[in-house]
Amino acid sequence: MERGTPGASRPAEPGPCLSNLRGAEPAASASRLSADRAQPGNPTIAVAAVLPAGGCGERMGVPTPKQFCPILERPLISYTLQALERVYWIKDIVVAVTRENMGTMRNVIQKYQHKRISLVEAGETRHRSIFNGLKALAKDQPDSQLSKPEVVIIHDAVRPFVEEDVLLKVVIAAKEHGAAGAIRPLVSTVISASADGCLEHSLERARHRASEMPQAFLFDVIYEAYRQCSDYDLEFGTECLHLALKYSHMKAKLVEGSPDLWKVTYKRDLYAAESIIKERISHEICVLMNPKDDIEPIDHLLKALKNELNDVKIESGALSQVGRDIQQSKLEKCYNFVCMNIMTSDFQETRNLLSTLEESSLSILYPVVVVSVHFFDFELVPLSQKMESLVWVRDTAKEMKKRNILLHGLIIEYSQVSKMLLCSECTLCTIIV
Amino acid sequence: MERGTPGASRPAEPGPCLSNLRGAEPAASASRLSADRAQPGNPTIAVAAVLPAGGCGERMGVPTPKQFCPILERPLISYTLQALERVYWIKDIVVAVTRENMGTMRNVIQKYQHKRISLVEAGETRHRSIFNGLKALAKDQPDSQLSKPEVVIIHDAVRPFVEEDVLLKVVIAAKEHGAAGAIRPLVSTVISASADGCLEHSLERARHRASEMPQAFLFDVIYEAYRQCSDYDLEFGTECLHLALKYSHMKAKLVEGSPDLWKVTYKRDLYAAESIIKERISHEICVLMNPKDDIEPIDHLLKALKNELNDVKIESGALSQVGRDIQQSKLEKCYNFVCMNIMTSDFQETRNLLSTLEESSLSILYPVVVVSVHFFDFELVPLSQKMESLVWVRDTAKEMKKRNILLHGLIIEYSQVSKMLLCSECTLCTIIV
Repeated sequence: MERGTPGASRPAEPGPCLSNLRGAEPAASASRLSADRAQPGNPTIAVAAVLPAGGCGERMGVPTPKQFCPILERPLISYTLQALERVYWIKDIVVAVTRENMGTMRNVIQKYQHKRISLVEAGETRHRSIFNGLKALAKDQPDSQLSKPEVVIIHDAVRPFVEEDVLLKVVIAAKEHGAAGAIRPLVSTVISASADGCLEHSLERARHRASEMPQAFLFDVIYEAYRQCSDYDLEFGTECLHLALKYSHMKAKLVEGSPDLWKVTYKRDLYAAESIIKERISHEICVLMNPKDDIEPIDHLLKALKNELNDVKIESGALSQVGRDIQQSKLEKCYNFVCMNIMTSDFQETRNLLSTLEESSLSILYPVVVVSVHFFDFELVPLSQKMESLVWVRDTAKEMKKRNILLHGLIIEYSQVSKMLLCSECTLCTIIV
Repeated sequence: MERGTPGASRPAEPGPCLSNLRGAEPAASASRLSADRAQPGNPTIAVAAVLPAGGCGERMGVPTPKQFCPILERPLISYTLQALERVYWIKDIVVAVTRENMGTMRNVIQKYQHKRISLVEAGETRHRSIFNGLKALAKDQPDSQLSKPEVVIIHDAVRPFVEEDVLLKVVIAAKEHGAAGAIRPLVSTVISASADGCLEHSLERARHRASEMPQAFLFDVIYEAYRQCSDYDLEFGTECLHLALKYSHMKAKLVEGSPDLWKVTYKRDLYAAESIIKERISHEICVLMNPKDDIEPIDHLLKALKNELNDVKIESGALSQVGRDIQQSKLEKCYNFVCMNIMTSDFQETRNLLSTLEESSLSILYPVVVVSVHFFDFELVPLSQKMESLVWVRDTAKEMKKRNILLHGLIIEYSQVSKMLLCSECTLCTIIV
């Protein structure tokens, strides 16, 4: 077992994925957890998570194991880790990966600055991988930096959209019932087949549920179940709730989960995950300009943008005096910027933004799109200057790409804005979307 | 019951969705069907399909019923109809829609030129809708234009990617066993819950399957089952295989289906479907140019394009002498065009392509992307001419959009191609992708 990056927990995840406790019940539960923590003598629930990630993704039809398939160039498992580590009360996250993927996993942890992660070697099967994760938490050795939790969450590396809400619900339920798991209604009828491949019987759909993840257990309950279970269970079983029932006689509490809990299984699920993430980060555009600049053509462009992208929140403001301002209010929830550079060849608005972005950690997790709009009067400005601006954008874009900042340039004829606008605006929309 | 658009079957669907019989077994079966048809006296299997489409899509979280949700602006159900009607041996397709959606459905049939479709009114439940569809096929009346099939396929309006392959397999199996249905391995473990919301038992995943669509039945078998079944079945049941077993004592043959059979259920499934369709239509780009034109800058651009889009097949060729040529060889499998207009202000290459596209039916089913690239020498050509070209593109684009042709314009400085290239090429790629 190796400890990835011990230390303080990651700062709250910026932007649309920021976890919220929704509804009265979980909020109450959350404050219960916090109150427990605040009062000495009143025991906190110590929670850890185990994430089996040893699968080879054969159903995906691609050579890369599905947990390492890239979504917007970041491996799927990194989104799942992000979803878990933003929940402050999960103290340790133990990930089980195969020996050959250990290096890849270490790179992911480093590149995306994941915290509180420990790595263990995956077993041959899902159950063996989970068991290895539990063993790492069970042995209370001074050098391991891990201590035995009261409740352990078991989740899948390929369910990236898990919310704090459901994690909290299964933990609270596990504390009370010994075991708990998220469930969903069945999408298809389930049937059993006879040996000759014919229908034997079909299950009543309303009486059955799909067992999903996350699940949570009193640590001793699930650890004992794994210690007692047979090789057959470890080899052919997949369901932790089943082991807790069979070996520890704990009837798991079932918690209704949201559709977001679905497991990325097929190639189409990667497409869906990418679209969901894109939707989350493209709901807002921040338009930056120098407040001294003549407002008319920009106004025109802004109106056109708002008209075209009517479900996107478009905010405009000045960048020049900002620095801190922008960093706090915008940089934490916006991944799309349009910088207006009017009749200048130094592109100050764009330069300001890029340096602010470079200082922030915004682009570590998600790509940031910057469109640098350059207004020129084509009759007055020589070709060489327009060329220069394009070359500057091209060269800067190359540099920025390495930092996950996608810079695009757009030249607009200033004196004839209304005529040029439609084309420019379409291009702008295309780039942003 | 109303007959939508009777008459000849639709011409083979062009391009990537063209159905193929893959593998030895279905090919053999297909030729068996054809041979049956060819020899008089040897009975053909008469096949019809029933498509219940009365659902309200509550799980989707959107007000539009999911079968009418747009994917690339075309309703989901139209893709499913396309998948069924391109299978020549399905003689009639009966769609059950609610009274309030009857008009919408008629518009879909007309706009996308669907053939062999009949509409019936949907019932309150899925089973009642299917029963209505079967009744329409059962009554052998001279004015109905429908005759009773030997085998009936039942499919879902929200499974758009069904292949001829699996349709054929279930039909052949239904002919032999009376009933047949597609199945898939379970993605999640299935459990049953006790009244107090706790785990009762979990099903062994390996012994169970998800029952998917399509299913097929000897018509008399399923029609009799529906006539005999109880109101409770019609109200709360969902599984046709179950009715065939319970009332007609037919043990359905189970046929392993592909992952493509999945049911569009949640919003994420719409995203996935859109990505799959986009992938299918964006695998090829056709670059058109006048063969007389100086080849160097175009060559440069082509190389850059190939470099950037390395999993896309890029073909280049002349358009001027074509007409028929293009129509046959390209227009049936390519949905993305780049027209090179070198130092001309009449954009002849683009005009030629657009008029050829307008004559064809290519853009009825999928959007066609056309990028009109205009090479000018910026030092020689006055601003007004560049402006004119943009205005022409803008105005033409507006017109073309109505025909599902998405026209974009791109001006490139001719004399400094290598310098300008990177920006232009990126824009080109962005537009195309």
